[in-house]
Amino acid sequence: MEALQPLNPDYEAAIRESFERQTLMATLGARLVAVVPGRVEIALDFSPGLAQQHGFLHAGALVSIADSACGYAAQSMAPRDHEVLAVELKMNFLRPAEHDRFLAIGRVLRPGRSLSACAADVMGYRSGKEILVATMLSTIAVRRADRDTV
Amino acid sequence: MEALQPLNPDYEAAIRESFERQTLMATLGARLVAVVPGRVEIALDFSPGLAQQHGFLHAGALVSIADSACGYAAQSMAPRDHEVLAVELKMNFLRPAEHDRFLAIGRVLRPGRSLSACAADVMGYRSGKEILVATMLSTIAVRRADRDTV
Amino acid sequence: MEALQPLNPDYEAAIRESFERQTLMATLGARLVAVVPGRVEIALDFSPGLAQQHGFLHAGALVSIADSACGYAAQSMAPRDHEVLAVELKMNFLRPAEHDRFLAIGRVLRPGRSLSACAADVMGYRSGKEILVATMLSTIAVRRADRDTV
Amino acid sequence: MEALQPLNPDYEAAIRESFERQTLMATLGARLVAVVPGRVEIALDFSPGLAQQHGFLHAGALVSIADSACGYAAQSMAPRDHEVLAVELKMNFLRPAEHDRFLAIGRVLRPGRSLSACAADVMGYRSGKEILVATMLSTIAVRRADRDTV
Repeated sequence: MEALQPLNPDYEAAIRESFERQTLMATLGARLVAVVPGRVEIALDFSPGLAQQHGFLHAGALVSIADSACGYAAQSMAPRDHEVLAVELKMNFLRPAEHDRFLAIGRVLRPGRSLSACAADVMGYRSGKEILVATMLSTIAVRRADRDTV
Repeated sequence: MEALQPLNPDYEAAIRESFERQTLMATLGARLVAVVPGRVEIALDFSPGLAQQHGFLHAGALVSIADSACGYAAQSMAPRDHEVLAVELKMNFLRPAEHDRFLAIGRVLRPGRSLSACAADVMGYRSGKEILVATMLSTIAVRRADRDTV
Repeated sequence: MEALQPLNPDYEAAIRESFERQTLMATLGARLVAVVPGRVEIALDFSPGLAQQHGFLHAGALVSIADSACGYAAQSMAPRDHEVLAVELKMNFLRPAEHDRFLAIGRVLRPGRSLSACAADVMGYRSGKEILVATMLSTIAVRRADRDTV
Repeated sequence: MEALQPLNPDYEAAIRESFERQTLMATLGARLVAVVPGRVEIALDFSPGLAQQHGFLHAGALVSIADSACGYAAQSMAPRDHEVLAVELKMNFLRPAEHDRFLAIGRVLRPGRSLSACAADVMGYRSGKEILVATMLSTIAVRRADRDTV
C-alpha cells in the first residue's frame, strides 16, 4: 500500500485541538494516543459509569471511540481548514466487551475530496492479552470549515 | 400490521430493571420514557459534556440511546428470563444534532427466537419543532439469561 | 411530513432513461414500476436463475433492486443534469425470500446537495399475501453528471 | 492470529455443492476460485449484462459475490450438516467498479456457534493493476440444515 501523505502538515495539531473540544471523550475518559497520516488511535479504560446491563462496556462507548478514531483518521488526510463529520457508521460486536482497557484504531480505507471511507477495530486488553472486540465501517464527510451543510 | 403480544407479561419491569444497570445511560443523562410491546423510547437532554467538536451532540451519544432503545424493544418481545445483546448496528446521521432534547424511538421490525431485527429513529427538539436527526438498523441477539455466548 | 418537490421537472424521464442503461436490471428481470418525487418502486419476479442454495431469491438480487430503488429515489429529488452513485448500503434480511414476486420501495429520508440518505423496504408476495422480507439504509452521492469523482 | 481449524473435514465439498445450487452465481458468471478454512474467494468478469447506468459493474453484483464469499467463509468453519444464511450485510463502495475482473475475498472475523461475523474485500483488476473497489461487513447465521427458522 502506498504511504499516506498528509495534505495539511499541521494535521496533528488540528486533530488534537478538535479532540479537546469533543467533550464526550472527556466524559467517557477517552484519550487520543496516536495520530499519524491515515491512522488515529483512541484509548478508553473501563470504568463503572460506562456499563451495559451485564457490567461490560456499553456498545455506545465502543462506537463513540471508534467513530472519533475514524473521523480523525479522515481528518489526518484532509486539506488545511477542512473538518470532518460522520455521515454513517456500522459496527459489528464480535465478543463481550468485558475488558479493562480498549483501543480504537481508526484508519482511512479511501481518502476522498468530499467523502472518506474509514474502518476501525476496537481491541480489548485484559490479563496481558489482546483481542478484537468490535469492528466498524464508516463514511466521513470532509468539507471546508466554513461550510455548514452536507 | 398485527398487534405485538409480549411473551413475558412482566416485560416492562424486566426492562426497567435492566436499564437501571446500564450505567452509561445515567452517565449520559438518558431516561427510559416509554416501554410498550415492540417499542421503547429513551430521552436525552443535550448537556455540555456530550458534545463533538462543534458543540453538537456526539454521534456516539446518539448511537448509545438508539442502541439501548433497539435492545429493549427486542427484549419487550422476548420470553421470560431472556436477555438481549447487540450483534451489530448501523446509523445514518441525517442532520447536525444541534438540538436541546433528543428522543430515540426503538421498534422491533421482526422479532425472532434467537435474533430480532430492530430500527430506531432519533428525533431532535428545539424551539418547539421536531425533526428526524438520525436513523438506525440493528440486529439483536435474544438468548436465555444463563447462556453466555453467541 | 412536508410534500417533496422535485428540482428537475423532467425527473421521471431522466430516471427511466437511466434505468434502461442499468443492464443488470434486465438480466435479473427487474421492472421500474413507480416513480414519484422521493419514492421509486422496482418489481422483480422470482425466476430459477436468481436463487441461493435453498432455491429462494439470493440476497444479492434483493440488494440489487433495493439499491437501484434508493438511488433513483435520490435522483428524483436531485437537480437537472445531476446523477447518483451509491456510497454505501446496509440491508437486514428479515425472512426467507421464498416468494413469487418482490417489490423494492425506495424512499428519500433526507435529500441533500451532495448526499442523500435513503431507505428501502422489500416486500414479498405469495398466495395473495404481502410481507416485509428485507430493509435497507443507504447513502447516495448526488453530483453533476460531468464530475467523475467523489 | 490463531490458525483456523475446520470442524467439518468435508467443508470444501459442502461449499462447492452449495455454490452450484446458487443459480444467481451462474447467471452473473461468478466462479468459486478458492476455499480454505475461514476464507473463500469468488471471481467475476465484467460482462455487458451486469452494468449500472455508466456501464460499470452494478453495486448489486459486487454485493452478490461478496455476500456469497462471506457466507461460504462462515460455512468453512461450521460443523457438518450446518448451513449458513445472511442476517445482514453492509458494503462501502470505494471506487467506480470500472474494471475487467473482480475478486471477492470473504473471511471470517469471528466464527460462532450460531452467528459468524465476516468481512469481504472486492478487488478490481484492469491493465495489470489491482485495487480495492468495495468492502463489506456481514453477519451470517449458522444453523443445522434441518432447522428452518432464525
